[in-house]
Amino acid sequence: MPKINCVGVITSGGDSPGMNAAIRAVTRAAIYSGLSVKAVYHGYRGLIEGEIKLFHTENVSNIIQRGGTIIKTARCPEFRTPEGRRKAYENMVKEQIDALVVIGGDGSLRGARAFAEDYNVPIVGIPGTIDNDLCGTDSTIGYSTALNTITDAVDKLRDTASSHERLFFVEVMGREAGFLALNGAIASGAEAAIIPEYVFEKDQLAEYIENGFRKTKNSSIVLVAESEVTGGAMGVAERVKKEYPSFNVRVTILGHIQRGGTPSAEDRILASRMGVAAVAALIDGQRNVMIGIDNDTIVQVPFSQAIKKNKPIDTGLVDALHMLSI
Amino acid sequence: MPKINCVGVITSGGDSPGMNAAIRAVTRAAIYSGLSVKAVYHGYRGLIEGEIKLFHTENVSNIIQRGGTIIKTARCPEFRTPEGRRKAYENMVKEQIDALVVIGGDGSLRGARAFAEDYNVPIVGIPGTIDNDLCGTDSTIGYSTALNTITDAVDKLRDTASSHERLFFVEVMGREAGFLALNGAIASGAEAAIIPEYVFEKDQLAEYIENGFRKTKNSSIVLVAESEVTGGAMGVAERVKKEYPSFNVRVTILGHIQRGGTPSAEDRILASRMGVAAVAALIDGQRNVMIGIDNDTIVQVPFSQAIKKNKPIDTGLVDALHMLSI
Amino acid sequence: MPKINCVGVITSGGDSPGMNAAIRAVTRAAIYSGLSVKAVYHGYRGLIEGEIKLFHTENVSNIIQRGGTIIKTARCPEFRTPEGRRKAYENMVKEQIDALVVIGGDGSLRGARAFAEDYNVPIVGIPGTIDNDLCGTDSTIGYSTALNTITDAVDKLRDTASSHERLFFVEVMGREAGFLALNGAIASGAEAAIIPEYVFEKDQLAEYIENGFRKTKNSSIVLVAESEVTGGAMGVAERVKKEYPSFNVRVTILGHIQRGGTPSAEDRILASRMGVAAVAALIDGQRNVMIGIDNDTIVQVPFSQAIKKNKPIDTGLVDALHMLSI
Amino acid sequence: MPKINCVGVITSGGDSPGMNAAIRAVTRAAIYSGLSVKAVYHGYRGLIEGEIKLFHTENVSNIIQRGGTIIKTARCPEFRTPEGRRKAYENMVKEQIDALVVIGGDGSLRGARAFAEDYNVPIVGIPGTIDNDLCGTDSTIGYSTALNTITDAVDKLRDTASSHERLFFVEVMGREAGFLALNGAIASGAEAAIIPEYVFEKDQLAEYIENGFRKTKNSSIVLVAESEVTGGAMGVAERVKKEYPSFNVRVTILGHIQRGGTPSAEDRILASRMGVAAVAALIDGQRNVMIGIDNDTIVQVPFSQAIKKNKPIDTGLVDALHMLSI
Repeated sequence: MPKINCVGVITSGGDSPGMNAAIRAVTRAAIYSGLSVKAVYHGYRGLIEGEIKLFHTENVSNIIQRGGTIIKTARCPEFRTPEGRRKAYENMVKEQIDALVVIGGDGSLRGARAFAEDYNVPIVGIPGTIDNDLCGTDSTIGYSTALNTITDAVDKLRDTASSHERLFFVEVMGREAGFLALNGAIASGAEAAIIPEYVFEKDQLAEYIENGFRKTKNSSIVLVAESEVTGGAMGVAERVKKEYPSFNVRVTILGHIQRGGTPSAEDRILASRMGVAAVAALIDGQRNVMIGIDNDTIVQVPFSQAIKKNKPIDTGLVDALHMLSI
Repeated sequence: MPKINCVGVITSGGDSPGMNAAIRAVTRAAIYSGLSVKAVYHGYRGLIEGEIKLFHTENVSNIIQRGGTIIKTARCPEFRTPEGRRKAYENMVKEQIDALVVIGGDGSLRGARAFAEDYNVPIVGIPGTIDNDLCGTDSTIGYSTALNTITDAVDKLRDTASSHERLFFVEVMGREAGFLALNGAIASGAEAAIIPEYVFEKDQLAEYIENGFRKTKNSSIVLVAESEVTGGAMGVAERVKKEYPSFNVRVTILGHIQRGGTPSAEDRILASRMGVAAVAALIDGQRNVMIGIDNDTIVQVPFSQAIKKNKPIDTGLVDALHMLSI
Repeated sequence: MPKINCVGVITSGGDSPGMNAAIRAVTRAAIYSGLSVKAVYHGYRGLIEGEIKLFHTENVSNIIQRGGTIIKTARCPEFRTPEGRRKAYENMVKEQIDALVVIGGDGSLRGARAFAEDYNVPIVGIPGTIDNDLCGTDSTIGYSTALNTITDAVDKLRDTASSHERLFFVEVMGREAGFLALNGAIASGAEAAIIPEYVFEKDQLAEYIENGFRKTKNSSIVLVAESEVTGGAMGVAERVKKEYPSFNVRVTILGHIQRGGTPSAEDRILASRMGVAAVAALIDGQRNVMIGIDNDTIVQVPFSQAIKKNKPIDTGLVDALHMLSI
Repeated sequence: MPKINCVGVITSGGDSPGMNAAIRAVTRAAIYSGLSVKAVYHGYRGLIEGEIKLFHTENVSNIIQRGGTIIKTARCPEFRTPEGRRKAYENMVKEQIDALVVIGGDGSLRGARAFAEDYNVPIVGIPGTIDNDLCGTDSTIGYSTALNTITDAVDKLRDTASSHERLFFVEVMGREAGFLALNGAIASGAEAAIIPEYVFEKDQLAEYIENGFRKTKNSSIVLVAESEVTGGAMGVAERVKKEYPSFNVRVTILGHIQRGGTPSAEDRILASRMGVAAVAALIDGQRNVMIGIDNDTIVQVPFSQAIKKNKPIDTGLVDALHMLSI
């Protein structure tokens, strides 16, 4: 196992709040451990095109509180090709980068795995995504912030919703995972959540509407996970309008504000711990693993396991939500 | 002029942050002045249906910081009919309410004017709307909060937008007024604002895109006022996609979150001052006037003037925005 | 074991954000399960003095987002006497309250234990305190919010601190526990944390100052846990001024703002889950236990264990903080 | 009048939120107008020591939302000496800076005036201070944000205060001006404000306490302006404790968090407009004036008038506060 002298750090795919805290932690932990650090800009594209810069401890000063990523990110189809990865590898050699820390979601880790297979590059991943859809870790960087952004937005909607007898469908992100929708619904006191993990049946919605919405004669807020399975807030609203034409239905799609904002304390702490752990793992000879958090303890999760897409959602929360919306 | 012993307070139309501070101020200023106060729930509908409650100083404790309105609001088509107003008047007589303070926007003041004409009821209005589209007052209750909500949302969008080369069109409220869009664009550092007060010409947009968006090769954020004239964010985006199919265009519609949230300090102060002034005006024998703020001084604006819909927008801000987005 | 028909809910001791979410969850879960709910106002004092009110599901509407506690709290020395507890018991009998859910910290649970011993009352506790100093649970209701309040405040301080070469000592709450100070320091990017769990040695501080403060020639922020052991921010600052009279030292004591504010999404979810679990535990015949959260799973912790005051702090975080402040 | 080719921009004295928006506006308006811009770091000290950097439009990208000042600030006693100002002037000549825009408070404008007198340098000031204590302008950059920070903090205090019967004295900034305390008290629903503009008489406080605090038997919050005249929150609290030893008195000093934080929309807009206007004024041949805002219109205020320290406070607000706290 060759000694690691220089670590490259990349943020890839969709950005998430707390990525800067992770960049800061990787940079400082590496420097603290005697390594040098090079930041790769614009994700894998920057690796292919050579947008690389030596980082000192000052480069990451005063960034822990900022949303987004100071080294930018991009989606990079070219990296999915062997030719793209070859160029990336050549730049790593040229820049004398011995190992990579990749901060990103599912797609970024898949890219990392393919790259590691081709060129035997030591890579450690850090889960950076608001969707919390990576396996083997209780949380991902950005999830806490997005959950609080959603909660804050629904608080605002409730202020105005409670004045009118309306049924609000609020679409939140999460790709094919319902964590944000289900937990956001509990946190914001919404009446229900429609998530892809549960088969969406018209009768359930109907039952909710009959029992819940009509009963209280007040406004209701339902969180809907964006998803092909749920149809999103628009899809659900259209079905309701067809079945219950008299209802006063409104749709709000929270959209990209969920990916931004000052990271929560929880996301900053998680990112800081994961950044430190990623450097330690590389020094320790680990590779092809994603840093995870399990029961408040740092763990290492093989890439193959992390991207499995079968992360279970707590059914107890669905019951709790039902109980609390009476 | 008959003596006023009891004042009714109503919030009507769309709600706006700071209405509770106004309710609190009306209630306490009236009680302080020896009057009694009755709250009318659900706007004019509550006046028609008799949803009326005597308020004490405790009823408005601990509400200054809350969005929405504790006495609810509603749109009430029935109040536009003579029959509806007759029922409302009968309830006023029955409840011994001698005068009204109506907190709301354009439509609410029109209703108040019609009611006063029919029954010679002393009514004073308070401008409660996020749109800032009432004439004779520099600001309306809720405008400051909505402006800050928009600014905060665009800050979050920029976090993530700046990672990708995208053109974001963000639709904000304002009905047919561009105050929120133009000032929100300046406050959030957006590249441009498309507002109904300026004729929307394709060439302007094209020019902006050529000079602005392409030049920097970075993401751009453009605020679009909801409006039939502008076409809203969707309308603008569609035109751009047709003309520049290669552009990576995104649309975000901020929607009802703009009407909610904890009111800003400015809105609370404005609402408190206006509530105090409304009671003083009634005691002073004024009627058919809206309380306004002009050069930080409380003024009284005749209803007929307040609803004129020709409130001018500062063209200097358009120039400033242009300069600041280079 | 007698059947429980009516549950009393109390908030006691210092309040914390999220208590209202817990009250809401207890109330609705109990009603959902066919029980009635009585709210006891002003903590144990209300039990002694009979400030008790029947709660319906509407009583807890629209409170999940509010700081403080709608049923108030108080410290109650009288409840520490047998005579006080006797009066409390008599009121329970009179009001036909069969069991209690007590939401509060260390002292509240001690009171609950004494009361249960005297009168064999079924009591389940819910940990409501910003200090996170109860054993057997990973977190307590209010801790997340306080951590974010601290982080937000230090963000603001850093804005201005970074303009001047200053050494800021920021005192945060936590009683004799350093969770808020240590985690707050990591989350806010502070340079160090002085916490009661580690013996405070002058040389450590000196070393930090020499290596950290002087090296960067910039401002530094150090979080200090309020505590007799640390001396608080004032105590630390005085020692620094004596040793390094040339330093530009500032002290900020965050104080009671840490106990207030809209609860974070995390605190609302935790409170909701704990409230549901507390009712389930009572129905299930449990008593003398505090509901805890362990590895994201609800657990029941005997009172005797919960109040043990030996909750360990993660030493890895101290090392991480050291690494990240270079 | 020599042509201006290069403008220097400085932030001086205490920093305030929105200064970055002003720096951005000065920079971009100057470049837009064909001038070059040089940023002077660390206030006047940087002018003396030559910490000066050419700024392009990119240097001020993505800073509008940040608290503090990216070009730092400092207090600089040396600039009060003729020798200090001579060095500063030599650096201006050396760097070919033809004119200055100084963003700061009272002391900064005094320095600017002295410098202009010595060397006939064209200088335009921009009022950057949270205290709002400069004459000839309705507001200063940072005042709106500080007001909202105070309001937010008191909201949090009220959450917890309302659970206990306490009298909270909250000290806010403002130097010898009561704007923040008085307006903050109205915005936060505090019971009273003690400000230096009104002679502080023991009987007033006593009267308030008898009539207000004892009557409601609930907690009260009083805002106290830091000031030698008021004695600050500590001074007031000590007097109360002496007179009313049975009272449960608490003191909170908000401190430096008032100077930081993301600027409000209002401060960003004000700063943007003032920055644009400052450049226009210089090009127009103006000098020795501070840019002000009067009735929402940009004005130019001679330095001598701006620093007069007799800015009147609206006594109507004191009456309103009294009325609203019943």
